[in-house]
Amino acid sequence: MSDSGAGAALDRAATMADVGERGLLKHLRSRIPAGPGVLVGIGDDAAAVETGALTLVTTDVLVEGVHFRREWGAANLIGRKALTVNLSDIAAMAGVPRYAVVSLCLPADTTIEFLDGIYDGLLERAAEAGVSVVGGNVSATPGPLTIDITLLGHGDRLLRRDGAKAGDLVVVTGTLGAAAAGLNFLLGGARLGAEGILSHAGTWTGAAPDSLLACIRAQLDPTPPLAFGRALAEHDIVHAAMDLSDGLSGDLLAMCLASDVSAWVDGAVLPVDPCAAQLEKEGGTDGFSAALHGGEDYQLLLAVPPDAFGSLKDVAVVWDLPVTAVGEFAEGPPALSMKFGDRMKRLRPKSHEHFKEPGSRRSDPSAEA
Amino acid sequence: MSDSGAGAALDRAATMADVGERGLLKHLRSRIPAGPGVLVGIGDDAAAVETGALTLVTTDVLVEGVHFRREWGAANLIGRKALTVNLSDIAAMAGVPRYAVVSLCLPADTTIEFLDGIYDGLLERAAEAGVSVVGGNVSATPGPLTIDITLLGHGDRLLRRDGAKAGDLVVVTGTLGAAAAGLNFLLGGARLGAEGILSHAGTWTGAAPDSLLACIRAQLDPTPPLAFGRALAEHDIVHAAMDLSDGLSGDLLAMCLASDVSAWVDGAVLPVDPCAAQLEKEGGTDGFSAALHGGEDYQLLLAVPPDAFGSLKDVAVVWDLPVTAVGEFAEGPPALSMKFGDRMKRLRPKSHEHFKEPGSRRSDPSAEA
Repeated sequence: MSDSGAGAALDRAATMADVGERGLLKHLRSRIPAGPGVLVGIGDDAAAVETGALTLVTTDVLVEGVHFRREWGAANLIGRKALTVNLSDIAAMAGVPRYAVVSLCLPADTTIEFLDGIYDGLLERAAEAGVSVVGGNVSATPGPLTIDITLLGHGDRLLRRDGAKAGDLVVVTGTLGAAAAGLNFLLGGARLGAEGILSHAGTWTGAAPDSLLACIRAQLDPTPPLAFGRALAEHDIVHAAMDLSDGLSGDLLAMCLASDVSAWVDGAVLPVDPCAAQLEKEGGTDGFSAALHGGEDYQLLLAVPPDAFGSLKDVAVVWDLPVTAVGEFAEGPPALSMKFGDRMKRLRPKSHEHFKEPGSRRSDPSAEA
Repeated sequence: MSDSGAGAALDRAATMADVGERGLLKHLRSRIPAGPGVLVGIGDDAAAVETGALTLVTTDVLVEGVHFRREWGAANLIGRKALTVNLSDIAAMAGVPRYAVVSLCLPADTTIEFLDGIYDGLLERAAEAGVSVVGGNVSATPGPLTIDITLLGHGDRLLRRDGAKAGDLVVVTGTLGAAAAGLNFLLGGARLGAEGILSHAGTWTGAAPDSLLACIRAQLDPTPPLAFGRALAEHDIVHAAMDLSDGLSGDLLAMCLASDVSAWVDGAVLPVDPCAAQLEKEGGTDGFSAALHGGEDYQLLLAVPPDAFGSLKDVAVVWDLPVTAVGEFAEGPPALSMKFGDRMKRLRPKSHEHFKEPGSRRSDPSAEA
């Protein structure tokens, strides 16, 4: 085995089968920069990192064919999203993301070029978020490409999902439904080119390419409000918080279950993403349904005491982040209702289940244990 | 979605497709006990755990068809080993294992019974090692069952692999080759029954069922010396340490590369596992080759200054752990030699590569980045 000189250039068309695990690891190591707080980085039995008294830990996985298809867009977006979904979890606890370990299961025909693309996106996102990649693992698999990231963050004042109280407002950040609308068009053949522009419109025949592009980007490169949760925790404004990965209906019920309260949502005030709404007008998906049930918006769901909503809005202005009170928590066993004018109807979550619908794709990339 | 009462009994024959991700998560959550130092456990966006100033992090994966076959033995052994391979990494850094997150990718036809078996073994091993399972993730996959664990440990005085010096003794703990010998018989059809006894001997027609059983157990349920590294670090006895996951030849070269030294091994003193040797006598695999190149023994490889070898043995006696000086580190570019009597021959590592030999199984379950 030759190992002279880190970062020797590899043929980008070479496959895992050509390069082997050791060659691949050497290549990846040469790409990953040292980071602050990292005493022992990649290359030993374990990484050793500086931590505080309270450490947050989360893990989330992207599986090819379940959470993404490689023809949807450039490989770097897969790497970005694999980290982003974990960043969203740390942010929803009001944590500061610090260290990531990356576990890759790779089919033998994966090329260095494709893997480099994934790492381009992953390392770019890590640099944006102040995260150091400190370790990982590479394994062969006879199955699909799988990228599993565990992210450690620093915690202090935490935002939990089990503190919602009857009378609290149900508040969401940002707009909802764009990622789910984008997913539908990707499943219909739309493709994002390497330059970030639409390379195929797929089944879409309407106008509004800007809206289509915005929704596809929302699906392939989500942008959670990463610092907002920390600001809320510092000001002690909210009773509960979680990220909207699974769709508003499913996640709101999860918060109700954790907090032992019920909740209602006013359909008239849902902040349906304007691009998703625009696509609907031109024959696209139902924007309202995408906003209510579609997942992967990675915005925040908050339980806010009514007298703190003004303070919340003051903080949100600083971050240029829309916040919308869409309903209220109430006494009673965990359940959801939807308000239409004066009427209340039972609201059933419609988050898809990977296991239950073989061949379909659930809106949430995975479920957290 | 009904969620009344945690731990509602599930039909053990039910599959993931029957139960769905949410039902599955509810079931798993009900099984996982709270642990010391865990402020927020399973069920929120991220876990929150108490940590010290230095945290060790490692991740390792078991992929069905690459690292195990479910017909080899009971499901609980898969769960045990998935944690053990990570425990070995933390132990080789002289750390104390504390918190695990478990990421499962499951085919839709996985039964609750099988998954419960995996968790039985995982939680049993966690309890033995003082580890709390604090979070995880469940995802569907169209590919093989994959269990990816990230383990956090407390670190203080660390043992690294890059400190070997010319003149240090090459020392290994325990005996070598049993796991590789066991693997060969499993690949030949030997099977371990649920009661821990041999249910099929496969291609094996010799006597020595005790040796066969011992080697198969070494492969399916490895027992690394988990506390020995910490004792060594406290007494400042060794210059470098790493675990033997990949086989002595491959791992020794890795230590040479990290430390920028060469090394030689004396073939006459290798501590070939007596059960592996016994099997060879009766027509089994080559015990010497299994000890030299076979992986997954999860013993320790150490670089020990000659004047500290006595102290090392004193500590090893306390743990009832054999330690053997098998060679020496030397100046020169990283490379290995084998000593046979007075002759030295170049030694080339023979660790298998998953990617390079499609259909074959590498001795190391995976390679660490």
